[in-house]
Amino acid sequence: MIPKTKREVINDDFFIRLGVNIKDLAKLVVENQKPYIPQLTIYEAQESVKHVLDKREVQHAFITAITLDMLAEQGKLDNTPLGLILKDDAPDYGIDEQIAISVAGLYGSIAVSNFGMLDKEKPGIIAKLDYLGKSQRHVTTMVDDLACAVVAGAAARLAHKHQQKHLTIK
Amino acid sequence: MIPKTKREVINDDFFIRLGVNIKDLAKLVVENQKPYIPQLTIYEAQESVKHVLDKREVQHAFITAITLDMLAEQGKLDNTPLGLILKDDAPDYGIDEQIAISVAGLYGSIAVSNFGMLDKEKPGIIAKLDYLGKSQRHVTTMVDDLACAVVAGAAARLAHKHQQKHLTIK
Amino acid sequence: MIPKTKREVINDDFFIRLGVNIKDLAKLVVENQKPYIPQLTIYEAQESVKHVLDKREVQHAFITAITLDMLAEQGKLDNTPLGLILKDDAPDYGIDEQIAISVAGLYGSIAVSNFGMLDKEKPGIIAKLDYLGKSQRHVTTMVDDLACAVVAGAAARLAHKHQQKHLTIK
Amino acid sequence: MIPKTKREVINDDFFIRLGVNIKDLAKLVVENQKPYIPQLTIYEAQESVKHVLDKREVQHAFITAITLDMLAEQGKLDNTPLGLILKDDAPDYGIDEQIAISVAGLYGSIAVSNFGMLDKEKPGIIAKLDYLGKSQRHVTTMVDDLACAVVAGAAARLAHKHQQKHLTIK
Repeated sequence: MIPKTKREVINDDFFIRLGVNIKDLAKLVVENQKPYIPQLTIYEAQESVKHVLDKREVQHAFITAITLDMLAEQGKLDNTPLGLILKDDAPDYGIDEQIAISVAGLYGSIAVSNFGMLDKEKPGIIAKLDYLGKSQRHVTTMVDDLACAVVAGAAARLAHKHQQKHLTIK
Repeated sequence: MIPKTKREVINDDFFIRLGVNIKDLAKLVVENQKPYIPQLTIYEAQESVKHVLDKREVQHAFITAITLDMLAEQGKLDNTPLGLILKDDAPDYGIDEQIAISVAGLYGSIAVSNFGMLDKEKPGIIAKLDYLGKSQRHVTTMVDDLACAVVAGAAARLAHKHQQKHLTIK
Repeated sequence: MIPKTKREVINDDFFIRLGVNIKDLAKLVVENQKPYIPQLTIYEAQESVKHVLDKREVQHAFITAITLDMLAEQGKLDNTPLGLILKDDAPDYGIDEQIAISVAGLYGSIAVSNFGMLDKEKPGIIAKLDYLGKSQRHVTTMVDDLACAVVAGAAARLAHKHQQKHLTIK
Repeated sequence: MIPKTKREVINDDFFIRLGVNIKDLAKLVVENQKPYIPQLTIYEAQESVKHVLDKREVQHAFITAITLDMLAEQGKLDNTPLGLILKDDAPDYGIDEQIAISVAGLYGSIAVSNFGMLDKEKPGIIAKLDYLGKSQRHVTTMVDDLACAVVAGAAARLAHKHQQKHLTIK
């Protein structure tokens, strides 16, 4: 049996199993940056999401998050404190958010602030992931925070890029 | 001339000059934690804000932030790139937020997420600080982010404390 | 079957299975702070290590780290990219260090710097954990970084505490 | 009078006034990565240092750090708590390191660990900056930590880049 690559793990779990698609994430990027980059297209936002998902440290965060969520979902962590925390998405767990904050931090402070807001407001696909996690069928404790971090990072990338174009520092 | 202590610098600038008071910050703490700690009083929130403000690393962040804001406000950084950035509260500056995120990080990931939301939504006294900064009379570029971090930290402290009381981990 | 508590998981895995004891960690704390706090005793260092280990976010980091290490060790992640990374302690994984840096960050910037140095120099018990991880019998990829973070945090706590005693800021 | 650009401020202060040059920083990058990338040239390391110095958030950190150091050096913060802290490079200040850690964080966890080690070991040009800061003529409190962060970031960039070339994840 040929083991899956990192990209295949992310694809099969995050995109296929949970029904997320790049466009859902890109929509949140556009929404987040509309006030600052009115001309931002969904296409450019999608490219930015893909760029973030291609970064090694992001992929490592994802395969870690997916592994933990899946093991909890499959009952393989039952009767352990971590299993209980992951199944309940206990609000004081914190490690899901710490990993996501580190990913956002790769794109600077704007990304970390964006992450905080997305994590609280849960727009669009984030609400769907949160709902799936509450549905008893799925565990999305780790992966919903990471989805916020990817959107936050992709948005911050574009913020930096567009200001670089338009800004002339005297 | 006896130089001011750290606490006097913070008091004179942040509380007197800008007209902030502890209660304004505590109100945001209560608002932030109401869904999770319904019995939270303004008094307990005030104690938590004071606890955060007493921490050495927080005080160092404050006197750094205040110094930069004041120098920009007094025109002493005019004609320098940093002076221009601070006067305009340029959204891509980032260092104001990095310092604030570090302060929030002292209280864990909940505090960092809270910070991000407060920084975007600007409720209550944060909006006032932001408005003062835009008024041309004052520069509040550094200090408005720190105010968010103090609220975020004080709220996270209470979140941890109350869960510690109610939680029995089996 | 009564499931283990968080503390029991940490105790059974980190202290019993891997043969770490609090004193080993405390020794590194004393070594780290000797230049700054000459009067520091091993007893006070042990108390500081225990204080860090009692913090909820630290415990959550530990049970997450232990779960991942154990699953890899028991072959339950075989043929997955994460399993391969954890078994090899791949130097570019990064998530082990991100979690540890977040834990250190709870104790401020001194702790984060301390963490970096301990992670590179691997003194005392850290070298032993690293060696156990390389021995094929054990996986310690996540837990060796956390051990560094606990020492770093416990040392920074004492640094702050002792300076608070001796420092009079004018 | 045409005000200086960000790049000119960094150049005039960091490179000319303090006598740092890119090669000094690049040497530390090579030293740091030699065990992992034996074929690394000083030329490639220099390119990586320049890449880090060109990043907007890094430049903002630098002009903030330089402003604070210069004001303290010129006596303009005399008789303030911040002035005293900066002149003495007080080891418990923390904000110098927090800004540097944020900069390192842009390059992932390897960079943060590298930063911690460089900050403690002070090899090469870092020791010189530290010595200049202790010489009474100069204040380098903020800028010596940033120099560590730039080396740490430039080294981590190369680590990621070279592993990307050589690694085939199955």
